[in-house]
Amino acid sequence: MLKDFETKKHEDKSQLNAEIKELQSKLLGQQQLLMQAKLPVIVLIEGWAASGKGSLIKEFISELDPRFYHVESPKPLPQSQERYPFLYPYMKAIPINGKVTFLDSGWMENVVRKYLRHEITKEEYRCMIRQVNEFERQLRDGGYIILKIFLHIGKQEQYDRLYRLVEDPGTEWRVDQDDLWQHKEYKRFMEAYDDFMEKTGDIAGWHVLDGNRRKTATRDALKLLVQRIERGIEEGKYEGSTSEEDFPLKEMPKLADVDLSPSIDDEEYSKELKKLQTRLSELHNIIYRKKIPVILCYEGWDAAGKGGNIRRVTYALDPRGFDVHPIASPLPHELNRHYLWRFWINLPKTGHICIFDRTWYGRVMVERLEGFCTDKEWRRAYHEINEFERMLTDWGAVLIKFWIHIDQDVQLERFTNRENTPEKQWKITDEDWRNREKWDEYEVVVDELLQKTSTKNAPWYIIESNDKKYARIKTLRIIVKALEKACEKNFKRLME
Amino acid sequence: MLKDFETKKHEDKSQLNAEIKELQSKLLGQQQLLMQAKLPVIVLIEGWAASGKGSLIKEFISELDPRFYHVESPKPLPQSQERYPFLYPYMKAIPINGKVTFLDSGWMENVVRKYLRHEITKEEYRCMIRQVNEFERQLRDGGYIILKIFLHIGKQEQYDRLYRLVEDPGTEWRVDQDDLWQHKEYKRFMEAYDDFMEKTGDIAGWHVLDGNRRKTATRDALKLLVQRIERGIEEGKYEGSTSEEDFPLKEMPKLADVDLSPSIDDEEYSKELKKLQTRLSELHNIIYRKKIPVILCYEGWDAAGKGGNIRRVTYALDPRGFDVHPIASPLPHELNRHYLWRFWINLPKTGHICIFDRTWYGRVMVERLEGFCTDKEWRRAYHEINEFERMLTDWGAVLIKFWIHIDQDVQLERFTNRENTPEKQWKITDEDWRNREKWDEYEVVVDELLQKTSTKNAPWYIIESNDKKYARIKTLRIIVKALEKACEKNFKRLME
Repeated sequence: MLKDFETKKHEDKSQLNAEIKELQSKLLGQQQLLMQAKLPVIVLIEGWAASGKGSLIKEFISELDPRFYHVESPKPLPQSQERYPFLYPYMKAIPINGKVTFLDSGWMENVVRKYLRHEITKEEYRCMIRQVNEFERQLRDGGYIILKIFLHIGKQEQYDRLYRLVEDPGTEWRVDQDDLWQHKEYKRFMEAYDDFMEKTGDIAGWHVLDGNRRKTATRDALKLLVQRIERGIEEGKYEGSTSEEDFPLKEMPKLADVDLSPSIDDEEYSKELKKLQTRLSELHNIIYRKKIPVILCYEGWDAAGKGGNIRRVTYALDPRGFDVHPIASPLPHELNRHYLWRFWINLPKTGHICIFDRTWYGRVMVERLEGFCTDKEWRRAYHEINEFERMLTDWGAVLIKFWIHIDQDVQLERFTNRENTPEKQWKITDEDWRNREKWDEYEVVVDELLQKTSTKNAPWYIIESNDKKYARIKTLRIIVKALEKACEKNFKRLME
Repeated sequence: MLKDFETKKHEDKSQLNAEIKELQSKLLGQQQLLMQAKLPVIVLIEGWAASGKGSLIKEFISELDPRFYHVESPKPLPQSQERYPFLYPYMKAIPINGKVTFLDSGWMENVVRKYLRHEITKEEYRCMIRQVNEFERQLRDGGYIILKIFLHIGKQEQYDRLYRLVEDPGTEWRVDQDDLWQHKEYKRFMEAYDDFMEKTGDIAGWHVLDGNRRKTATRDALKLLVQRIERGIEEGKYEGSTSEEDFPLKEMPKLADVDLSPSIDDEEYSKELKKLQTRLSELHNIIYRKKIPVILCYEGWDAAGKGGNIRRVTYALDPRGFDVHPIASPLPHELNRHYLWRFWINLPKTGHICIFDRTWYGRVMVERLEGFCTDKEWRRAYHEINEFERMLTDWGAVLIKFWIHIDQDVQLERFTNRENTPEKQWKITDEDWRNREKWDEYEVVVDELLQKTSTKNAPWYIIESNDKKYARIKTLRIIVKALEKACEKNFKRLME
């Protein structure tokens, strides 16, 4: 607790300097071990304005190889970042396995400022606290080492430091209005920091260091990191928790019970397609103006007709306002980060539509079946995905998930057709045939994921696609209806 | 020329629709061929506000697989982009081999608006035109197919369209102040577009299409792209030109003639180091305020002491204001783009310092010697690099290049020392020994690059590093001097 924190000025500098040097060289020695153990480390340094966060980071990195770490300073957040979920810049900044990211202030400062500026309600504040805890737990479970430090200085000390900075024309620019506001509202900030730390210490504990005693704080911070890494290397990659929380779920049928006979005649199809596309086009305008982010997820059997379905949607959209992200096997730099990272960084900004052609559900389908992740990892993923999606809908996103469904006979027909049509041959590969052989295994895992992740806020829709045209119309209707509902409200108020 | 352009309204829609459909399916068929030929395509669509750029892009992509293309709409540029060279967002958006990027307005609109808004001088305008031509030539030489389209509509037609958009509450937001300003200044814009097109048609010609006749324009645009791709596939990857321009060069000694004996004693080293670091730290503040971008490039022999040298520089810097980019072998997504792409996207923003630990000179060193690029490619690279660096210094960047130099005996000593010191073993690999065997070959190529790329605006400094401490002091002095000189001026005025 900051309010009971006792700070002192005195310290034995030469003794401390020697200790710091020793710890820095220990840290240097840990570089290689971390790389070998493929452990990623996040060091979050929060604290008062002028408490010495930058200088502390300098001491952390002074002996390190630049290939080994990255310093991220997401404050002040560029305005463009405000168009993403508030944890977006931090997720974007997570290191790859074996490396360290130092964050010069992060999610704590971001949330506390928003709260004290009344940009968010109490309700939203609580929601963000929950998201922070989920974020930290997911990273920890993904093998990330997280060290959180708060640099504390008293009000008088802060005054002296800000005064010295402002007086010197060379450093005056370093003090901005926000810093002066913080100083003026020192007490309110202290209470808010305390509250935040109290509520977010479970996954990775907070370490409050005395910014008054620079050398001592540096020594302590270095020691914390060195010890934390030592422990991490000793214990090996964290295997993850199995926390369970019940999300309100929508009941889903088994795939085997879905009637795939629905169809549509050509005339009605043309008429409906035109009507729905026109309406979708209008809605895209409103979405853009109201700054509502939209995320459409496509999963389904090979040759189920995802591509054609997506094209009927995008044809109605302004190409400046949407992106399609085709998801293939992760590239090395994606594989070496948290599995959700590559989806996070491709989230749409507010007012934009983003279509994922295959999604994060790969983890509980192909990665599970092919053994690309551990048992614990895919079992945990349902829960992590539900949290991820709740974060998105809490943010205000419209999130719709489609399972494009066909039966085995239709798939065989389409595969054969592809093989016999020269322009379509590229669409069919040996892997498709191999996957087809595993149809039954896939059906089990798909049934399971539909049961476990069809939450009220982000439900699944099974789209009968034996008749592709029927499927397209159904999909468009669902999208139009969801957007109409969303457009009745305004973004930013959706969270309440 | 826009001023002599005749536009008509009438067109035979059903005939055109059939042609469009046919061309779209041809384009679909070309997808695979492009992938096989690894040809990347950039389609730049410029034109008047409300001329139908977005709709045209829709027609381009309507049949395509989303894995195959990307639509980039860099207008309006977020403010953060203004802190990079003006071609940065377009370079960032180039596709990987085998794919297409559609740009919804690009470098033309960017430059013309800046010019008409008087944000740049005539001189700067000319400079940007030159950079555009260099940019296009470098991309073409790198194998990129570039198609440039301008959608033209008359002033009255533009008025009608804008009026219709503004009248409808659903589309009103699409018309911004800039569009209205353009309409008001129609004549000035026309002249400026004409001037720009006249001066930038040599590498990739402009195609002005009649936006009045939407279907005809769509058909023509599709035909242009299909034919351009056909030609590209037929001809195979463009092998590049051999344009030569004389850059004013600084005379450089041969490496063999460099006296490596300079050294410094420990006491003077400590004193100087402290002094220079303090000064550098002050300068970093000024750089930040004056928004001057700084790029420091390190090249040199293995074990020459680059890492330690860089650390002495970064120790003086605020970690929030610099980045170190260690350059290793390119990753697949880098290898599949223009070789300068991975450096472009890591340029510092204004006011920031960026240190490249190894650089784009890899092309004329390791890539040349190991056969990772063709003969034509590395021969052309000196010139391309000189242009790239002139673009950076014209932008206002301070660009300093160091060759950290040692002799073979010292390298052997350091290699051996690394092998015998457990904490340093990671620093020495078999590859280092292999490179050492090629010392003579490397010396030839390094001598050549020093001769050919030590331009007046971005000179090389050879740093004698048999005594690492001497090297650090010399490097710091050069940096401090260059920054002091830059700080006398203001950014934005440097280009004049």
